[in-house]
Amino acid sequence: MNLLLLDPSEVATDGSVSLTQAHAEHVRKVLKLGTGQTVRVGMVDGAMGVGTITTIADRHVELACAFDPAPPARPRVDLLLALPRPKVMRRLWAPLATLGVGQVILTNAEKVERDYFDSHVLQPEGYRPLLIEGLQQARDTHMPIVSIHKRFKVLVEDHLDALCPSVRRLVAHPGSDTRVATALADVTPSDRVLLATGPEGGWNDFELSLLETHGFARVGIGPRILTTTTACVALLTLVHEALRRG
Amino acid sequence: MNLLLLDPSEVATDGSVSLTQAHAEHVRKVLKLGTGQTVRVGMVDGAMGVGTITTIADRHVELACAFDPAPPARPRVDLLLALPRPKVMRRLWAPLATLGVGQVILTNAEKVERDYFDSHVLQPEGYRPLLIEGLQQARDTHMPIVSIHKRFKVLVEDHLDALCPSVRRLVAHPGSDTRVATALADVTPSDRVLLATGPEGGWNDFELSLLETHGFARVGIGPRILTTTTACVALLTLVHEALRRG
Repeated sequence: MNLLLLDPSEVATDGSVSLTQAHAEHVRKVLKLGTGQTVRVGMVDGAMGVGTITTIADRHVELACAFDPAPPARPRVDLLLALPRPKVMRRLWAPLATLGVGQVILTNAEKVERDYFDSHVLQPEGYRPLLIEGLQQARDTHMPIVSIHKRFKVLVEDHLDALCPSVRRLVAHPGSDTRVATALADVTPSDRVLLATGPEGGWNDFELSLLETHGFARVGIGPRILTTTTACVALLTLVHEALRRG
Repeated sequence: MNLLLLDPSEVATDGSVSLTQAHAEHVRKVLKLGTGQTVRVGMVDGAMGVGTITTIADRHVELACAFDPAPPARPRVDLLLALPRPKVMRRLWAPLATLGVGQVILTNAEKVERDYFDSHVLQPEGYRPLLIEGLQQARDTHMPIVSIHKRFKVLVEDHLDALCPSVRRLVAHPGSDTRVATALADVTPSDRVLLATGPEGGWNDFELSLLETHGFARVGIGPRILTTTTACVALLTLVHEALRRG
């Protein structure tokens, strides 16, 4: 935990905060801080700053926080992901938030089992703590916006333009020789990127064709076949790295 | 499982193989193949090829295998990793093999707890099945060579040149602005890369300085702080991507 991510409702107008039990325990037992010492803090979807410990008593920790004038920049990558198995999805939330995504758009595809959509890991109370964990690791405050779409064709044809206006679109496809850096060679500092990643068995021909019709350019990361988790981390890394130039 | 990885001892001189129970079950229940159909096979540290099913009876599956004349190319990246917690290390073996590493060189560092070295995940019987799982996912046959070093200084000063002769050396360090692609801009097709990745809290000044004295160039992947697992996947991805050009 490299940042205590606070809900704005926790922060009084004078910047004082009474920490939740989990945060208080982290300050006392992991960081082992005392009165007068400081800890990095941030508000969900808001600014980061520094909290000075004013009270430590029993299990109770209070901070006086001073926040930066502006929040950090929002991650410039959005992810369109064919919903993986619940066990895989559960482990993916934190790394996604750590790497940085503006949106996580989950969709059906031919090779996605319908009952994956019934999983607890798709409920906000299931995934939000995992996203917070990832943000606290990365030292970011931007909560990824999550949306879930059971109809791939309707999503791509009717909703994607409104969800992600004017972005560069890439679709990861095992057969492609085009590198992410090449596809994004002319990226500008204001560009956002929407990256589509398929299910373990890949997009089918219809899905790939529909994505291409809607402006997604194919990219590949070499001949090795990665699991969904590893592929997501690898692809997001390459997109972020390409955007570091722009 | 995108490849059945066989031990050379399983393969008779005429190419016939009687599959282990796990492989037989995969062929019957997941791939649902029948007599005359084919499956991709490979021999540990050897060639890949195709196995034609000659017998399926009860739980017993036999193949007639034909192997390529040459094994696939060995991954051109080696990893020097400050040993993470056993739970993290256990989950890292398979992704490392999937992404492709020639060697995994595990080392001590100031921020590594000594008792991590006693873990079962550092015993070959603990990690070898996980490496095989990763290779079967990636469709590769090259078993990473694992070595474990409890003394960082001795490793870097006395053993590393022999373990990894004439390679490009990089050390990941959060503060560095140098991108992996920049550090490897002049890479040639025969170059190998040794990538050093620190513990969760980072290398200390002595460790970083010792690595630099021994030819490691600092690289960074941006301001976000990643977990060891995500950092390893991200960094290996960037090195492999840089080597795709060379």
